[in-house]
Amino acid sequence: MQTTYGKLFLIPNFLSDDNTSDFIPEYVRKEIHHLKNFIVETEKDARALIKKLNIATPQNELHIFLWNEHSDKKNVAELLKALQNGEDAGIITDAGLPCVADPGSDVVALAHQKNIDVIPLPGASSIFMALMASGFNGQSFVFHGYIPIEKPLRVKKIKQISLDAVSKKQSQIFMETPYRNNQLMEDILSTCDNEMKLCVAANISSAKQFIKTKTIKQWKSEKPDIHKQPAIFILG
Amino acid sequence: MQTTYGKLFLIPNFLSDDNTSDFIPEYVRKEIHHLKNFIVETEKDARALIKKLNIATPQNELHIFLWNEHSDKKNVAELLKALQNGEDAGIITDAGLPCVADPGSDVVALAHQKNIDVIPLPGASSIFMALMASGFNGQSFVFHGYIPIEKPLRVKKIKQISLDAVSKKQSQIFMETPYRNNQLMEDILSTCDNEMKLCVAANISSAKQFIKTKTIKQWKSEKPDIHKQPAIFILG
Repeated sequence: MQTTYGKLFLIPNFLSDDNTSDFIPEYVRKEIHHLKNFIVETEKDARALIKKLNIATPQNELHIFLWNEHSDKKNVAELLKALQNGEDAGIITDAGLPCVADPGSDVVALAHQKNIDVIPLPGASSIFMALMASGFNGQSFVFHGYIPIEKPLRVKKIKQISLDAVSKKQSQIFMETPYRNNQLMEDILSTCDNEMKLCVAANISSAKQFIKTKTIKQWKSEKPDIHKQPAIFILG
Repeated sequence: MQTTYGKLFLIPNFLSDDNTSDFIPEYVRKEIHHLKNFIVETEKDARALIKKLNIATPQNELHIFLWNEHSDKKNVAELLKALQNGEDAGIITDAGLPCVADPGSDVVALAHQKNIDVIPLPGASSIFMALMASGFNGQSFVFHGYIPIEKPLRVKKIKQISLDAVSKKQSQIFMETPYRNNQLMEDILSTCDNEMKLCVAANISSAKQFIKTKTIKQWKSEKPDIHKQPAIFILG
């Protein structure tokens, strides 16, 4: 008789350190209460989340498999073996949703190849919260991930994105490593037309949340200080 | 003295009729418990959601403003007036997140112009749940909304999307009115290369959830019946 395969749950994390515990739906806690196997981006952050999610398994009985740019590929093979032996497992990332601007999609791709069911759980994404709150077109949008660092490439990308926003009527979402946010803001302001609209959404869902949509001209006279603040940028 | 403006909350809705009440985070219920003013897509669905969210205001004291393609523009003017008078308000759509593949973004854009704070609340989106669960690249993706209906335009769009998925390494997300899903599936299968991968994510979060990523060749021999089932399609 063939063993029924386990399921691979995709577990949302909190977006900010000051999110209250009820930021994650109780539904998620119920669905993953029984899990023992987790594939995680960093062990410390994952164990903190597992604690907040009230997983039934004691911490010392958890099977934690590391999955990041430095980890051993055989970790994922062991995880898949557990799933094929009928044990459920979960993917956790350090913030927000697994696989969306975060690691995990390659593990999910392998699960599909092995015919393992993948169960996404409901949770918040800072990308979508920014898009919702921007006032821009939510019927058509692009997420570019991180914008290039090198100046000429970066300026070219911002220029292209701002043209696409207008010609395709498509909201253009992107981000930067937080300590370069103020520099990115300068580059956007010096590259885009004055009439273009930009949404800056920083510290989403935290007490310091800042979400404003203004024209480039307006931003030039009221520059926000978003140095080291996690932020999403949208041109629309 | 200037009145402090009210805040405009963006309220997530359930994704499926069989979602349990704890699918929506308790945090959302607390944040909007006091609201009296709502701008909604359809009144009946909104009142059902308001009931499930345990809003403190009795149903007959709610101020419901309609906002859809048929509604009167002056509704939004009245809503903005309430906000400027210091009253908080909320936007509700019929499923998922306001403003994302759903109405609301024009109301939010007006709020930004009037300097009214916009507060997005955490909730699930079927688009993001499909993307997470697809195993495709979540660092770079496009959402195209509804695919054109007319055959030549539709085939051209699918062809373009499938080329972009490969050349830009960008996940391509799109949808169709549910009763045309099987037809769309046929058009994708006859347009894309056999090696291309397609994720079909139907009835997300419901008991009938179906999420699979396979090659076009594999799909050709195991066609899903997704007629009238809400679905998200992703080429990656």
